[in-house]
Amino acid sequence: MRRGVLERPTIAYETLGKMAPGGDSTVLVFTGLSPSAHIASSPEDASAGWWEDMVGPDKPIDTNRYFVVCLNSLGSCFGSTGPASINPATNSLYRLDFPVLCLEDIATAGAALLDHLGVGTAHSVVGASMGGMTALAFALLFPGRCRGLLSISAAARSLPFAIALRSLQREIIRKDPEWRQGQYDFDKGPVSGMRLARKLGMITYRSAAEWAQRFGRERATQEPQQGDPFGIDFEVESYLEAHANKFIGAFDANCYLYLSRAMDLFDATDHGGSLDRALAQVELERALIIGVESDFLFPPHQQAELAEALRPHVRDLAFKRLASIQGHDSFLVDMDRFRPAVSRFF
Amino acid sequence: MRRGVLERPTIAYETLGKMAPGGDSTVLVFTGLSPSAHIASSPEDASAGWWEDMVGPDKPIDTNRYFVVCLNSLGSCFGSTGPASINPATNSLYRLDFPVLCLEDIATAGAALLDHLGVGTAHSVVGASMGGMTALAFALLFPGRCRGLLSISAAARSLPFAIALRSLQREIIRKDPEWRQGQYDFDKGPVSGMRLARKLGMITYRSAAEWAQRFGRERATQEPQQGDPFGIDFEVESYLEAHANKFIGAFDANCYLYLSRAMDLFDATDHGGSLDRALAQVELERALIIGVESDFLFPPHQQAELAEALRPHVRDLAFKRLASIQGHDSFLVDMDRFRPAVSRFF
Repeated sequence: MRRGVLERPTIAYETLGKMAPGGDSTVLVFTGLSPSAHIASSPEDASAGWWEDMVGPDKPIDTNRYFVVCLNSLGSCFGSTGPASINPATNSLYRLDFPVLCLEDIATAGAALLDHLGVGTAHSVVGASMGGMTALAFALLFPGRCRGLLSISAAARSLPFAIALRSLQREIIRKDPEWRQGQYDFDKGPVSGMRLARKLGMITYRSAAEWAQRFGRERATQEPQQGDPFGIDFEVESYLEAHANKFIGAFDANCYLYLSRAMDLFDATDHGGSLDRALAQVELERALIIGVESDFLFPPHQQAELAEALRPHVRDLAFKRLASIQGHDSFLVDMDRFRPAVSRFF
Repeated sequence: MRRGVLERPTIAYETLGKMAPGGDSTVLVFTGLSPSAHIASSPEDASAGWWEDMVGPDKPIDTNRYFVVCLNSLGSCFGSTGPASINPATNSLYRLDFPVLCLEDIATAGAALLDHLGVGTAHSVVGASMGGMTALAFALLFPGRCRGLLSISAAARSLPFAIALRSLQREIIRKDPEWRQGQYDFDKGPVSGMRLARKLGMITYRSAAEWAQRFGRERATQEPQQGDPFGIDFEVESYLEAHANKFIGAFDANCYLYLSRAMDLFDATDHGGSLDRALAQVELERALIIGVESDFLFPPHQQAELAEALRPHVRDLAFKRLASIQGHDSFLVDMDRFRPAVSRFF
């Protein structure tokens, strides 16, 4: 990978609610790997956002009370500068000339966004999955820029099981001949590789228990494809196919590779030699760390570890382990458990 | 898939120890998806077998006392008839003309092998993973042909999480352009797809806890490949690469597809309408069901379910849940726990 500096990157963002003077009520949200900055519907954009159930008037993150700022991650492809953007130095796309990306870079973009908006110290920084790791990176890099941290289904570092899964997803994409070492046409691209990587993602984002309950051994209703003796047979295969199809075309392959690898590279201990020394730098008044029983990509012992490591350094620290059965994705779907947990923080 | 009948299939097998008159001391072993019939070294073949630590003189399955028979599964590619064999009706390879394969077919091949050897009732039928399901299929289909059952890290049926993972492995292979709808050259073939599918296999055969302990966030020692900015970086990636390379060329892709799908299709309840009615047909004197805490492909609740369902029908029934951290593969590597557990059965 290339180390380097981005000249004047663009950061796409969305705000909801009104900024209080000084920006005290600002909630800065970092996203997971794939969403855009569109976190929730508003008069400006009535379409549902990626955390529609959680953010809005009278919702757990109440836009009547808070000024919610969500950014599209640096390196992504929904308005922020990333591998699919034009490199002003060459006037052609960055592709693999994009420099190595870390979650710290995304956190730094968040701080620049607060500067731009005139927010000194935010109420809190919030994120789930990759966003939860980025929120922690923000708290480490910019002590004093946020009073609270809400980190959901994230971790202080990536462990080898999750690294292996993401590494395999990346290799699946890169082995698609249509990837062409990153030089693919945007109307073609590694569609097959992206579809397979997305299916692997779906498998790791949910849980065996949920699927046993939901699909059991139900057979798919569609007719088996002619000439393909190993086509879809079980309902769970049909479900994965439908979800993968939705993803295709929506996300740029090179951006996916950069963001995926950025998650692998994250390790909070890099900020101090040990987790304790790293976390001693945060200046948080309060933090809530949430984990989910059935999450095997970011298993709950990782959130417990983060919470325990934060405890000596944060006066008001809570760790909540939820019994959701939807795995890593629970924060998007198990609103019955997540709404009250998040509400208590706000 | 094609339904059909195989004319005079060949079954490759290996025997160790001496057959007692009538064959009472016979232990019939079904393998997991990938091994050959070579279960352990002997004067005839001094190379290490796939269960070398478990089978042999004075080992837990003691060849001084037992006549051990292991077969290469029907549908596999190590001597038994499978998709990579010549179809006598056409004089060309079966490939995708091989009829749909079920674990029941492999079990039936095992019964034919006992006939061939002159064994009436075996001491026991044994298997782990796919072999454990096949052993159960044998007990269901051929009541009275074995007195005991040892089923390890297996299940009474495949659940959607495991089906999804295997379905994705198969799709990865089929999406490799070199698969050519099963018509690949044997010196070429879908090497890239097989490598990726094997890596996914390795991820599902081991456990997050083992890898956290073994690799942590250690970096690979090899130099990053030039021109591939997403190459191997972490030690866990290097480990997967080495294991995938060992597998390549050793296993035929079409055989893999058939055997993988056969696992998905297995459901003991098909033999009686309910698990209880199905298992009421077995005529076993004793059974030992072993599961492993850290196995997320065949999680221990599935072995517990099988044991509970067998309990009313088998006088001497034991269920053992082992604390191994090596996941589904523990029966191949955690000999400290598996040796005593298996010894007690024999």
